[in-house]
Amino acid sequence: MREQTTVAEAGEAATIAAIRAAAPSSINGDDAAVLDLHSANSRHVCSTDILVRDRHFTFAYSTPWEVGVKAVTQNFADIQAMGARPTAILLAIATPGDVPLTSVSEIARGINDAAAPWAAELVGGDIVLSKDLVISITAMGEIAGPADALTLDGAGVGQRVVAAGPIGYSAAGLAILRHYGSRRSVPSNDAILNELVEWHCAPRLEPGRGSVARATGASAMTDNSDGLVADLSHIASRSGVCIDLDPHAIAPDKKLRYAANITGCDPWEWVYTGGEDHTLLGTTDARLPSGYRYIGTVRSVSDELQDPLLVTVDGGPAPYTGGWQSL
Amino acid sequence: MREQTTVAEAGEAATIAAIRAAAPSSINGDDAAVLDLHSANSRHVCSTDILVRDRHFTFAYSTPWEVGVKAVTQNFADIQAMGARPTAILLAIATPGDVPLTSVSEIARGINDAAAPWAAELVGGDIVLSKDLVISITAMGEIAGPADALTLDGAGVGQRVVAAGPIGYSAAGLAILRHYGSRRSVPSNDAILNELVEWHCAPRLEPGRGSVARATGASAMTDNSDGLVADLSHIASRSGVCIDLDPHAIAPDKKLRYAANITGCDPWEWVYTGGEDHTLLGTTDARLPSGYRYIGTVRSVSDELQDPLLVTVDGGPAPYTGGWQSL
Repeated sequence: MREQTTVAEAGEAATIAAIRAAAPSSINGDDAAVLDLHSANSRHVCSTDILVRDRHFTFAYSTPWEVGVKAVTQNFADIQAMGARPTAILLAIATPGDVPLTSVSEIARGINDAAAPWAAELVGGDIVLSKDLVISITAMGEIAGPADALTLDGAGVGQRVVAAGPIGYSAAGLAILRHYGSRRSVPSNDAILNELVEWHCAPRLEPGRGSVARATGASAMTDNSDGLVADLSHIASRSGVCIDLDPHAIAPDKKLRYAANITGCDPWEWVYTGGEDHTLLGTTDARLPSGYRYIGTVRSVSDELQDPLLVTVDGGPAPYTGGWQSL
Repeated sequence: MREQTTVAEAGEAATIAAIRAAAPSSINGDDAAVLDLHSANSRHVCSTDILVRDRHFTFAYSTPWEVGVKAVTQNFADIQAMGARPTAILLAIATPGDVPLTSVSEIARGINDAAAPWAAELVGGDIVLSKDLVISITAMGEIAGPADALTLDGAGVGQRVVAAGPIGYSAAGLAILRHYGSRRSVPSNDAILNELVEWHCAPRLEPGRGSVARATGASAMTDNSDGLVADLSHIASRSGVCIDLDPHAIAPDKKLRYAANITGCDPWEWVYTGGEDHTLLGTTDARLPSGYRYIGTVRSVSDELQDPLLVTVDGGPAPYTGGWQSL
């Protein structure tokens, strides 16, 4: 079998050319990219994430294309969680020299494909050598009109908690991959298992949900990245409120229960602590934004308690409260 | 001696708190940062770089504070080279767990200090574990008014080539560090050697030169990051012109000649191939922008040559033409 060309063999110019071919943009290629604003009275929004191979992803589970998709989804979730619309991406890669050139171009193709529904483009980047494969994505977005951005401190007592997207699917997919040991060992004819695995490897947000929530009157928003309880705790803590979840609204669905049965896991743990679905989680006292469902209510913090719970379930403690820790 | 607290011991929350204390910003801390525009009719500009320890910097030569300064300078040079004004920074760090917490907070303090002359702030970021210490900086900027950005393809025949900042100082500083083997072995009472070393470890741009050049009618610009010939070749290639350098205008000054004498290097090599000064290099047919000097002219590409030189010196080939390669 012929060996694949590596990035070190290809060199800098050919590697950058391969990335730009996989994710073309007319505004890429200068010292910096100039972003025109599309709407009057608008502001820019920016966010960054850094992913390390074998910590945040592994090619035993994910294709390079999926890694690119997931990197965009998690950054665009942050942009959408401000009520903004993603517009552009910068990609910085540190890579071992022996990584195949096609892996890098496939990551770029995944970035391009995940950004396409927003008409967002890969507008610039940098590539260097290192021991680890490290991917740093910066997402830019635009927020138009005078209404406030959707911030972590925007939740108010009496509001309802809303969610757009599945909760626990990514964690279920990871558990399935660990159960079978590799992607190709997952039974290829099992649609549910493969759907959950895909949700772990290449989650996709429905475009526009963040802007819809802002336009409909939501006031606080984040995304389910570290775990449902952990992420809602950020809103609760910053807003000085308590969030009470409705267990019926977040109960594991048939797919999660099916995967739990196979893997021997508790699907409730996936729901409460899984994260990485990048489901948008917001609070509102206006009407339900389209594409969302109610999952809880915003309550006042109990004054009599010394260390009140920030996130409760039906008024009591959540059965699982852990979450992803970066360090 | 008491061991220093590492980032792994401190954990994610304390590490992020240390970064935010070293580089405070009121708009940091949400899912994404919202950037208000300061001028009417303005656009955003963005650029990213990724630095790997022991490839792009080493703590034997540079302090963590200096690494932060340099990371900002090289990104802000890209923003300025569009004729824009830097406004904000995102910092993504992948770090081994055993890196001292103070190293990370000192990097952030360097970022803060280098950004301060522009009133730019560190507005967000991400931190994860990895084997290498990898720093990815994204810089945002603003370009106001209807005039074009300063692009690589904007040079025209008959224009003059202008530069703001030293050329060859960073390469001289690196040669001095290599000559003495470490930072502390450089004679501390030698002002010239230490000035050049500081220019390598923590180059600082004079704020506003990019905007000044654009306001004065410059049309193309880049910065001296990979080497003078290499960087000007980008402008020449993209603009379809040839750039002829005036050897008198770029001749090594007394400081470079002094350092060359000590290190046994040819200072002309530093000038032509050194890079990393992040000196702004532009072309203009209008008046000389303040803070700039003339270093050459833009000529037409010779039609009779099959493989014409993109960058010449006094009409002939440059004695050194290499430059930094990332892969």
